[in-house]
Amino acid sequence: MKLIDGKEVAAALRKGIAAEVGTMVAAGGRPPCLVAVLVGDDGASQTYVGNKEKMSAEVGFRSQVLRLPDSTTQEELLAEVARLNADTEVDGYIVQMPLPRHIDEQRIIEAIDPRKDVDGFHPENVGRMAMGLPAFVSATPDGILSLLRYYNIPTAGKHCVVIGRSNTVGRPIANLLSQKGWDCTVTICHSRTANLPQVVAQGDIVIAALGRAEFVTADMVKEGAVVIDVGITRVASETTKSGWRLLGDVKFDEVAPRCSYITPVPGGVGPMTVVSLMKNTLKARRGL
Amino acid sequence: MKLIDGKEVAAALRKGIAAEVGTMVAAGGRPPCLVAVLVGDDGASQTYVGNKEKMSAEVGFRSQVLRLPDSTTQEELLAEVARLNADTEVDGYIVQMPLPRHIDEQRIIEAIDPRKDVDGFHPENVGRMAMGLPAFVSATPDGILSLLRYYNIPTAGKHCVVIGRSNTVGRPIANLLSQKGWDCTVTICHSRTANLPQVVAQGDIVIAALGRAEFVTADMVKEGAVVIDVGITRVASETTKSGWRLLGDVKFDEVAPRCSYITPVPGGVGPMTVVSLMKNTLKARRGL
Repeated sequence: MKLIDGKEVAAALRKGIAAEVGTMVAAGGRPPCLVAVLVGDDGASQTYVGNKEKMSAEVGFRSQVLRLPDSTTQEELLAEVARLNADTEVDGYIVQMPLPRHIDEQRIIEAIDPRKDVDGFHPENVGRMAMGLPAFVSATPDGILSLLRYYNIPTAGKHCVVIGRSNTVGRPIANLLSQKGWDCTVTICHSRTANLPQVVAQGDIVIAALGRAEFVTADMVKEGAVVIDVGITRVASETTKSGWRLLGDVKFDEVAPRCSYITPVPGGVGPMTVVSLMKNTLKARRGL
Repeated sequence: MKLIDGKEVAAALRKGIAAEVGTMVAAGGRPPCLVAVLVGDDGASQTYVGNKEKMSAEVGFRSQVLRLPDSTTQEELLAEVARLNADTEVDGYIVQMPLPRHIDEQRIIEAIDPRKDVDGFHPENVGRMAMGLPAFVSATPDGILSLLRYYNIPTAGKHCVVIGRSNTVGRPIANLLSQKGWDCTVTICHSRTANLPQVVAQGDIVIAALGRAEFVTADMVKEGAVVIDVGITRVASETTKSGWRLLGDVKFDEVAPRCSYITPVPGGVGPMTVVSLMKNTLKARRGL
């Protein structure tokens, strides 16, 4: 069993991005510029945006966080989005979710210029991705592909079982892995799937993205499978100083011995997401 | 075994659309208006467009065919597309494919206003469909859903195996059937799939959309399965007057006795496609 080290892969990718930015700047080019829009003062969102800002600096991007008050109206936010769409110095930007309740998130997402939509949430990017056209792929599915690529894990003709049908993870990764170049046979299963354990047990590659702590047990996993755990659930714990710990969707201790490769939680898919955003921003700087 | 009669379903849907248009017009509304753009004089395209024009008239739509010469430049076609986007009397329009070689088809598709894209080929519609948002679903996948609905074929928790990963059929139908409301477990397989016959044999519902005549044989089909045959290949024949006949992707004679439901070729999925275009045009008239 080999542990997939998301931190190592993220560091390697970060280094590659920093080198490309260095070359760009040495040639007299403007570095990529990423803006994050943060509405209100949600604690988790502040942390996420902080991480994005920090990594932007590390890879040599210009970055800016636009902090707007919780009282920002939808119209005001749309005006900000229009301004960012028009700003030729901004290559890509994200509007950190969730937004305050009085704002329609989908409305905001669809107002973002798809060519600056480095989160890859705009329907046009989702469609382009689904059609195999150049697109900004959203962070988690892109991160999973980077892990598979880094470890040279064979995918062609392999049976990949995706558990979970969310728009952010399950659907896009199912689609991507069935495309030419990856060439997996892909099964997508979910809460309504009959005989789910038997379906999952067919997977040469299992991607668990349903959001239920330790759902995938050893009996569901084929000997030698590659297991990618996207889940992250915070549970109370008496053994940690913080009083809580993070669990994935996979019962790691019993599943890991059966696997050829497995991602830990934390430290697997998690560290990949911010670096995927950086990849998209570099891509935006160059033009899709 | 029950034969799925595409002609019957299409006629029923056509009748429903005509009734809705009748109500709309009786209330003083303008009937839906569909325009087809036909570039050049490809024989098959002329036939397809002719069928669309005929059915538009039957359901009470206004329709128009814009015939442009084979020598039309990309710029001229883009200008026509811009004109149709701006024309408030046109609810939806299609640009009949294939286009002459000197025109970039993808460029034209992406220039169509997604709200008038009744073929459902624009990436924004593909993305909206994939995300479960209101969208124009393209004709063949929408036609398949209509067949399943008309015959009240249960789908929730069933395992659906889709053979073929095209952007026009395999990918969208795989996505749609995995969505809430349909709730299938979906496997998508293709030319690179290992042990394809065994994978297909798991399907409670099999959708054959790979474009290889009589590829699906009896040994690949589970007893009692529902088989939807999207294939249509013209082969030479000494037994028909025309000198050719149409074959599906399924070896009908040997597969049919094993099925609970099966579509014939022709007369199954084929008749559904034009009526799906009519559904989309009515939807465009009302606003997505």
